[in-house]
Amino acid sequence: MARKQGNERHDMTLEVISSNRSFGGTQGVYAHDSQQTGTRMTFSVFVPDHAPDERLPVLWYLSGLTCTHANVTEKGEFRRACAEAGVIFVAPDTSPRGDDVADDDAYDFGKGAGFYVDATQQPWAPHFRMRSYIEAELPALVAEHFPADMGRQGITGHSMGGHGALTIALRNAERFRSVSAFAPIVSPLNCPWGEKALGGYLGDDRGAWREYDAVALIEDGARLPDLLVDQGEADGFLEGQLKTHLLVEACDKVGQPATIRMQPGYDHSYYFISTFMAEHVAWHAERLKA
Amino acid sequence: MARKQGNERHDMTLEVISSNRSFGGTQGVYAHDSQQTGTRMTFSVFVPDHAPDERLPVLWYLSGLTCTHANVTEKGEFRRACAEAGVIFVAPDTSPRGDDVADDDAYDFGKGAGFYVDATQQPWAPHFRMRSYIEAELPALVAEHFPADMGRQGITGHSMGGHGALTIALRNAERFRSVSAFAPIVSPLNCPWGEKALGGYLGDDRGAWREYDAVALIEDGARLPDLLVDQGEADGFLEGQLKTHLLVEACDKVGQPATIRMQPGYDHSYYFISTFMAEHVAWHAERLKA
Repeated sequence: MARKQGNERHDMTLEVISSNRSFGGTQGVYAHDSQQTGTRMTFSVFVPDHAPDERLPVLWYLSGLTCTHANVTEKGEFRRACAEAGVIFVAPDTSPRGDDVADDDAYDFGKGAGFYVDATQQPWAPHFRMRSYIEAELPALVAEHFPADMGRQGITGHSMGGHGALTIALRNAERFRSVSAFAPIVSPLNCPWGEKALGGYLGDDRGAWREYDAVALIEDGARLPDLLVDQGEADGFLEGQLKTHLLVEACDKVGQPATIRMQPGYDHSYYFISTFMAEHVAWHAERLKA
Repeated sequence: MARKQGNERHDMTLEVISSNRSFGGTQGVYAHDSQQTGTRMTFSVFVPDHAPDERLPVLWYLSGLTCTHANVTEKGEFRRACAEAGVIFVAPDTSPRGDDVADDDAYDFGKGAGFYVDATQQPWAPHFRMRSYIEAELPALVAEHFPADMGRQGITGHSMGGHGALTIALRNAERFRSVSAFAPIVSPLNCPWGEKALGGYLGDDRGAWREYDAVALIEDGARLPDLLVDQGEADGFLEGQLKTHLLVEACDKVGQPATIRMQPGYDHSYYFISTFMAEHVAWHAERLKA
């Protein structure tokens, strides 16, 4: 069992992979031994310059299929907005990595495709614990090592990471003051990516999938404080996988406040994400600093 | 001889490699058969949305060692500023490419390291014609295919590309209304990168290098309309290769207007470039739209 439990002492050591001054702050990349995944995990953190002893609100960004922390760190164009708003930006990896971690040849399952679940099925269960990693272990590490005010957290993400942001926020209403997503998978129960991943990680009992499905969580009574979603109309995954309309309908049905914007001409890429990133950061900052 | 000359008809066909909507404009990547280099060349162009029949000023960005068009296109964070200012942004490659193009094992010579010269020495002379490619062929192609006002051009670049921007502007004062650079190599005559590259491409006669050296061009009488340079103080190449002080001294000596800013804590990476990109775009736009 790679994961330690109970009262065992966790290793909170952090290795600095790189540190670059950018937009008047520090963009770092860090690695640590995760107790949850039993692997070495990498993530990035941008910390704006701030007063001594000042603690800043935290915005989590969960990435999509095939990505690591690096995609948004290089292409996300979040630093100017985070520096202006005084918000820390944390970008985790999307799965455990390493030679001893189970994998699948497909891009949408296994490494790079953790779907932010705690897997219950073999061979995935030992390492694929991205839910507990994001919900518990990494926040503790961030609180320990960065000038973060963990009482003020927001969360966003892209595609599979949009699914992660929505479901983690819906299950942890007390933790997140602000929630948004870029082109999220809104209902894994109702799309091929989701059926493959949740079936593989969680098994055939679709009832067990509902806590990993934003639409099902809303149907089952979970609520968000508010919600901002941007979705490109030229996104090739919109019709077959993302199915934004299911989220619109679920929110409408129960009166969940949501601003879900369809953006003409935009696709699924970071050219889309970066375009609307500053608006999302500002939207989070408004709520985190209220 | 791969290069056509004289009155032969040039093939101005452009292949669209990719096209993505971004920041209310179009980020494209294009390829074409270059007559100058005798190779297929790739470059990127961002065109902000604009009125029908409106022609926009053009900002050229020349990249540094090892780069292609892709680095700045993905990491440069220029699109918001260009969209706001209504400026087209063109990013060429840094050398000819392909199996029949001479190369060197080092990162600072051969492919990815064209130094914006027309090589006179073998085996480089047939394909390494980046000066003529940037000065003549690519502008004609851009004028043909994009809504560009070629009467309003600015130029910038990074490191080797900063050298390219400065020297091309100094040799073509009538073409560029605005010139800037990020961490430029200011004097190839006086640094190891430059001595290796210019020696290899141009031969041992250092007199022939002077038209490819910004400091020498200024000493020999060339002038810029004005100049903005940002240079990180934590840039590991500052002391041994970039030698910003030589440019400061050359400008001071002859009264060349220049704003040369040393930026504490910043290094040579795109984390530095992206931080100051919007200021450079605004600086160019002010002059291009005056």
